[in-house]
Amino acid sequence: MPNQNKILKSELRQDLITGDWVVIAPKRKKRPVAQFQEARYKIKKEAKCVFCDPIKAEQEKDVLIYYDKKGAWTTRVFPNKYPAFQKGTSLNKRLVGPYFAKDATGFHEIIMTADHKLSLADLSSAQVAEVLRAYQERYIKLMNKKFVDYISIFHNHGRTAGASIAHPHSQLAAMPFVPMDVAKELRGAENYFLKNQECVYCRIISEEIARKERLVFQNDDFIAFCPFASRMGYEIWVAPKEHQPYFERLEKGEREKAGEALRIALAKIDHLLNNQDYNFYLHTAPCDGKIYSHYHWHIEILPRYSTWAGFELGTGIEINPVSPEVAAAELRKVNL
Amino acid sequence: MPNQNKILKSELRQDLITGDWVVIAPKRKKRPVAQFQEARYKIKKEAKCVFCDPIKAEQEKDVLIYYDKKGAWTTRVFPNKYPAFQKGTSLNKRLVGPYFAKDATGFHEIIMTADHKLSLADLSSAQVAEVLRAYQERYIKLMNKKFVDYISIFHNHGRTAGASIAHPHSQLAAMPFVPMDVAKELRGAENYFLKNQECVYCRIISEEIARKERLVFQNDDFIAFCPFASRMGYEIWVAPKEHQPYFERLEKGEREKAGEALRIALAKIDHLLNNQDYNFYLHTAPCDGKIYSHYHWHIEILPRYSTWAGFELGTGIEINPVSPEVAAAELRKVNL
Repeated sequence: MPNQNKILKSELRQDLITGDWVVIAPKRKKRPVAQFQEARYKIKKEAKCVFCDPIKAEQEKDVLIYYDKKGAWTTRVFPNKYPAFQKGTSLNKRLVGPYFAKDATGFHEIIMTADHKLSLADLSSAQVAEVLRAYQERYIKLMNKKFVDYISIFHNHGRTAGASIAHPHSQLAAMPFVPMDVAKELRGAENYFLKNQECVYCRIISEEIARKERLVFQNDDFIAFCPFASRMGYEIWVAPKEHQPYFERLEKGEREKAGEALRIALAKIDHLLNNQDYNFYLHTAPCDGKIYSHYHWHIEILPRYSTWAGFELGTGIEINPVSPEVAAAELRKVNL
Repeated sequence: MPNQNKILKSELRQDLITGDWVVIAPKRKKRPVAQFQEARYKIKKEAKCVFCDPIKAEQEKDVLIYYDKKGAWTTRVFPNKYPAFQKGTSLNKRLVGPYFAKDATGFHEIIMTADHKLSLADLSSAQVAEVLRAYQERYIKLMNKKFVDYISIFHNHGRTAGASIAHPHSQLAAMPFVPMDVAKELRGAENYFLKNQECVYCRIISEEIARKERLVFQNDDFIAFCPFASRMGYEIWVAPKEHQPYFERLEKGEREKAGEALRIALAKIDHLLNNQDYNFYLHTAPCDGKIYSHYHWHIEILPRYSTWAGFELGTGIEINPVSPEVAAAELRKVNL
């Protein structure tokens, strides 16, 4: 079976945006992990959850709250009690010996849905669209504040994905500079545009729609696909089909389509990989006052399919045992 | 206690070499993880280990083996059965639609010590120096091979650090390009030299020896310290005090000092953090035929103290709840 052998050979693939390389190594899927007993973090059965009743649990007060028609709250946003970025009136830049430091000035908020047990994958598309609306509303509120150059929105599902609270929630971190990984994509997108007179994400999206082999789902406005240089098994990107640099400009109708694409991508991962832990995050153009017309906002979903180990940490190259073509074929087959 | 408050405030710190930022966020150390039952991967009690008798277990044959005076093997090196990089006679560069791919041509080897239960932290300094000798001997053997531009040497300790086999072992991956994270350090070191006429690592090392607050251990030739912009709690770097770009040029006497510094750094983490899982990796100048006189080889040790979550994955910025000054003070106090 020469084809089988060809598929099992390790391959280096380059991310078209950043220029970074990954190793697609299907052989490593067969590695034994027999010497360790599998451990699984379980959610404790408990009487009280600090997020189910944020007011009673002395969480700080809401900055945003949505209700359903019956008057029950559905989504709420409040400041993170253990912030990585906190409110401040200066950056207080300083030299410490030869090193640079400054205050981590900004905002750090929690975006929470009401049900303790239902993850985004279990909600309706409309409910996921409401979560996106909360992201967007807070984004617009914070984007023009002083010291806010970038707003990172992310979601950790499950303990191994870094969630410390089991109750489903997303987070928003508004920070005083453009983070390194976003800066790298911005540079890559600009370089690609200068060379090709086309947005690199638009190029990728048209390729994935035409080729179909890495496609997971699409509707009129959004696409979900496994990227060619997937860093993780079953990684999915969700992106608007039309060129849109700025997440905050998303319109209501598009938001519903985005909610559907995100919900279906998460639910397919959830079903196929048996409630696998995952992270997702939103990448959008910075809000630092500059123009980023060559960028294209999107969401990247990374299941915790394998572990970043010494090789990944020491090189920046990720070894992914599942090719995106295999992953997408399996994900397409999942009936929800 | 204004000092206490000052310490608890989040701070952004910049890595002097790469320019990357981290968040030192001591407040986040107080986060509850009460909603998850703590799970710990345990090593199975088992009759046979595939690494204890590699020949019998049909591992491929050794490329290097050291014996003690009694004739028992102490360290051995053999090809990884599940390689990320494999031998080949070409890179077979290709375009796949708009994307670039090539064969993951190279070498992937296992460097293993004899005892199933004793980790590097439990061995003697001389035994750790022997492991470094094996790294070096294989490095020299592979560095001039075709398609080998960089050799990454790394070690995963424990399941959460990505080890699939419990028997202590390191790995070596020889690859056909300089990995992104090393390239970033090389650029940073060159830029710093052009600006300051000094190696950035030498500058850092003299600062850490003089200030002492982030120092963990030193002997005549090597230093172990918590870097100013530590990405992880209790992160330690081990480096030669003298300017040395090339790991493979390490001399016997220095190797013994390096073995001592590495062993003590690992043992201090092990004792202080109760057998915490960790990764370490070696960064050295590439072997691509170019000259990298401004670089300075070193080992970075990253305990698995916290989890990379959506924020870290989406931004490249790591949130570290333990300041390196606090970490180093605790590590210095550990008596071995």
